Amino acid sequence: MNLGSNEDTICAISTAPGVGGIAVVRVSGKMAFEYVEKVFSKPLAQSLSHTAHFGKMLKDGVVVDEVLATVFQGQKSFTGENTVEISCHGGLYIQQQILRLLLDNGCRMAEPGEFSMRAFLNGKMDLSQAEAVADLIASQNEASHAQAMHQMRGGFSKEISSLRERLIHFASLIELELDFSEEDVEFADRTDLKELVDEILALVNKLVHSFSLGNVIKNGVPVAIMGAPNMGKSTLLNALLKDDRAIVSDIAGTTRDTIEDSVVINGVQFRFIDTAGIRKTENEIETIGIGRAIEKANQASVVLYLVDASSITREELVTATSEFQEQISDPNKSFIVVGNKVDRHTGDIGELYSKFEFLDEVVFISALTGKNIDGLTDLLIQKLNLGEIGNHDTIVTNERHHKELLEVQKSLTEVRQGLDMDITGDFLAIDIRKSLHHLGAITGEISTDDLLSNIFSKFCIGK
Amino acid sequence: MNLGSNEDTICAISTAPGVGGIAVVRVSGKMAFEYVEKVFSKPLAQSLSHTAHFGKMLKDGVVVDEVLATVFQGQKSFTGENTVEISCHGGLYIQQQILRLLLDNGCRMAEPGEFSMRAFLNGKMDLSQAEAVADLIASQNEASHAQAMHQMRGGFSKEISSLRERLIHFASLIELELDFSEEDVEFADRTDLKELVDEILALVNKLVHSFSLGNVIKNGVPVAIMGAPNMGKSTLLNALLKDDRAIVSDIAGTTRDTIEDSVVINGVQFRFIDTAGIRKTENEIETIGIGRAIEKANQASVVLYLVDASSITREELVTATSEFQEQISDPNKSFIVVGNKVDRHTGDIGELYSKFEFLDEVVFISALTGKNIDGLTDLLIQKLNLGEIGNHDTIVTNERHHKELLEVQKSLTEVRQGLDMDITGDFLAIDIRKSLHHLGAITGEISTDDLLSNIFSKFCIGK
Repeated sequence: MNLGSNEDTICAISTAPGVGGIAVVRVSGKMAFEYVEKVFSKPLAQSLSHTAHFGKMLKDGVVVDEVLATVFQGQKSFTGENTVEISCHGGLYIQQQILRLLLDNGCRMAEPGEFSMRAFLNGKMDLSQAEAVADLIASQNEASHAQAMHQMRGGFSKEISSLRERLIHFASLIELELDFSEEDVEFADRTDLKELVDEILALVNKLVHSFSLGNVIKNGVPVAIMGAPNMGKSTLLNALLKDDRAIVSDIAGTTRDTIEDSVVINGVQFRFIDTAGIRKTENEIETIGIGRAIEKANQASVVLYLVDASSITREELVTATSEFQEQISDPNKSFIVVGNKVDRHTGDIGELYSKFEFLDEVVFISALTGKNIDGLTDLLIQKLNLGEIGNHDTIVTNERHHKELLEVQKSLTEVRQGLDMDITGDFLAIDIRKSLHHLGAITGEISTDDLLSNIFSKFCIGK
Repeated sequence: MNLGSNEDTICAISTAPGVGGIAVVRVSGKMAFEYVEKVFSKPLAQSLSHTAHFGKMLKDGVVVDEVLATVFQGQKSFTGENTVEISCHGGLYIQQQILRLLLDNGCRMAEPGEFSMRAFLNGKMDLSQAEAVADLIASQNEASHAQAMHQMRGGFSKEISSLRERLIHFASLIELELDFSEEDVEFADRTDLKELVDEILALVNKLVHSFSLGNVIKNGVPVAIMGAPNMGKSTLLNALLKDDRAIVSDIAGTTRDTIEDSVVINGVQFRFIDTAGIRKTENEIETIGIGRAIEKANQASVVLYLVDASSITREELVTATSEFQEQISDPNKSFIVVGNKVDRHTGDIGELYSKFEFLDEVVFISALTGKNIDGLTDLLIQKLNLGEIGNHDTIVTNERHHKELLEVQKSLTEVRQGLDMDITGDFLAIDIRKSLHHLGAITGEISTDDLLSNIFSKFCIGK
């Protein structure tokens, strides 16, 4: 992305690609009104902001379309620049013609995310808010939507900015000390500085910690479905997917059908991973498959271990679960034994339960009949302790933010240790500068062309 | 479509399905402002028409999205009803949530084309104009776009309506005569009536005749590429497609790549049909293929007959072209002999030409090197006599209109004959009524629920 071209007036189709009833072409920049006026049947520049004008798009006097042009004056627009949103008929040919008309009359094609980048550069939003716009559009479930919305509306960035301001104050006092280094003065009160560093570190630690949850919200909770062959793993997957399919079937253009194992339950997206059946085998290829299944289990947030509740004996269960758990590297991994096929159990129900009573956690289901699938999903939600999602105000979902926060954590910890060890101002200053840099990078107070280009190029065109 | 439900307030996503920077949800109906206000952070009902309001969509106090709501008051809107267009972030989840919010607060999901149908029912446009909206959106080239635009902006329907008004005047005079039938009076001047009928018939005949051209504009000109095997038919097809591919490659979401043989040349869409090579054969399957190729040639508007100009002898050419032309059922079919592979011809150019001089029309090309492909396409355009497309004001592109016009033609011809034979008013009245009915059906002055439902159900949702 050429960041030196913010003087240009840019245009792009901002609605989804394809044919619709209407489409919106957005024009933004210094010359937005002038360029659109060249091809629109009415003057626009003197219009009040936020007014819509019905008129004709004209190419050499020939009507290309009858459209609605909405005018946004300067700072009042999304980008902070003069903007015209042209709502035209949603045919491909028309969209293309209008775009060409604008390009032929002075506009330049917008790069992906360039409207949002201008909003950032013109001070309409900070960087983390602009990034949230992309997350908001990409969000596919309640939790990720709520987080992106929270971030777009300011999120934790205000708090970060204000703590950063206070740290800058100390940094400048310390830099001042350096100027007077021969006189050995202390302008920056070390006790106050410690307090501030502790305050920032407390927030940063909380935010860093929230990222594992944030990541799960954004990308879905990986749940591995494990068990010996023919325990009903695929049937369970289908049972879990069924509800979700019904939910998404009325959304045109949803891409969900290609992510066969992704389900939204109570607003949280789960990624169910159906794995190869696990059993002892001499077969080399099967061994590889089982190795991969175990690997998946290790990567997953939750492991469901399926057994046939109707046929397994207590002894078999003890052996199977303990052998399986040995293969899982993280002993604290959420692990739920699922007693499947309860529909086949004919005897006494107490007998069934007694086989499983040595386990901390077990859910009885029938994947085939759908019995107690709800109980299983409730337990999943509970295990993840996601109850507060949506109201929680300090969840980091963005990998870039997480990385910057880790850097802040590292350099601030060094500042803190330095203060404890009473090191000199010049050494303190280095680490404080680092902290300031990384704090500023989150909200965009510190940014480079490369960083911006990298962030906004992932946006869709027209946003 | 339930036509009895025009009291409902309807909503739909009006932009193309899928993820974009923004999406537009349209709400129209008596309660549009009231229903949107229930879930929007600002009052709207008292706003000036054509003003945009930035605010929050709220579900139980939680922000679903920050949106721009544009208000259109009553008759000033597209539908002629109170309308709000909600421009929201273009994520699938957000679009779905906003739609649900509206549905939960009183709106009903719009049927396909229901916004346009309401525009028609509220007198904002006549039926042929409303139909043109769908054509406009579907148009994929300059000519079909120009025709749809012309029709949407009034087209021939004003002329039809005014002639119909005048015919109604005569019809009522004749009906009046019937009331006084015992007195044998003539209120309707037969000479004036004849003149009017002739005038209408002249227009109708012109319109009926224009349909073959209109159909071609709308659906593309079918051009069959014929010839013996290895004459370079597929190479020619590729050469013809090449230019077009470059043109359409920058349009996201274009479906063109699935219609491999459709090309827009000088604004006219051509459908090139590559056929099986034609030769004498005993092979049964090949014979079927050749039969199909001949059938395609018979259906096409233009037939290109390829020969290898570098190797064919004059005698072979005479035999081949005459044998081929015999198989084409319509002797007036546009037929162009294409001398391909001129790049291979090494000898005297006069010798080459002399082999072909007995033919009325021949074009020499090299499909391989691209030589004179422009000459071929120029000739195609010329053959179709489409020069006036875009300025021509009386082209019928709609099959329904064509059918109605044929009915008008039939009944008016009978009126005309009746007038010549001096038949009585009661018989005249029957045919005039028929004519009025079919004229009225074109513009929608006569319409039935079934007709409307049939027309608008072919629209996309949200239009």
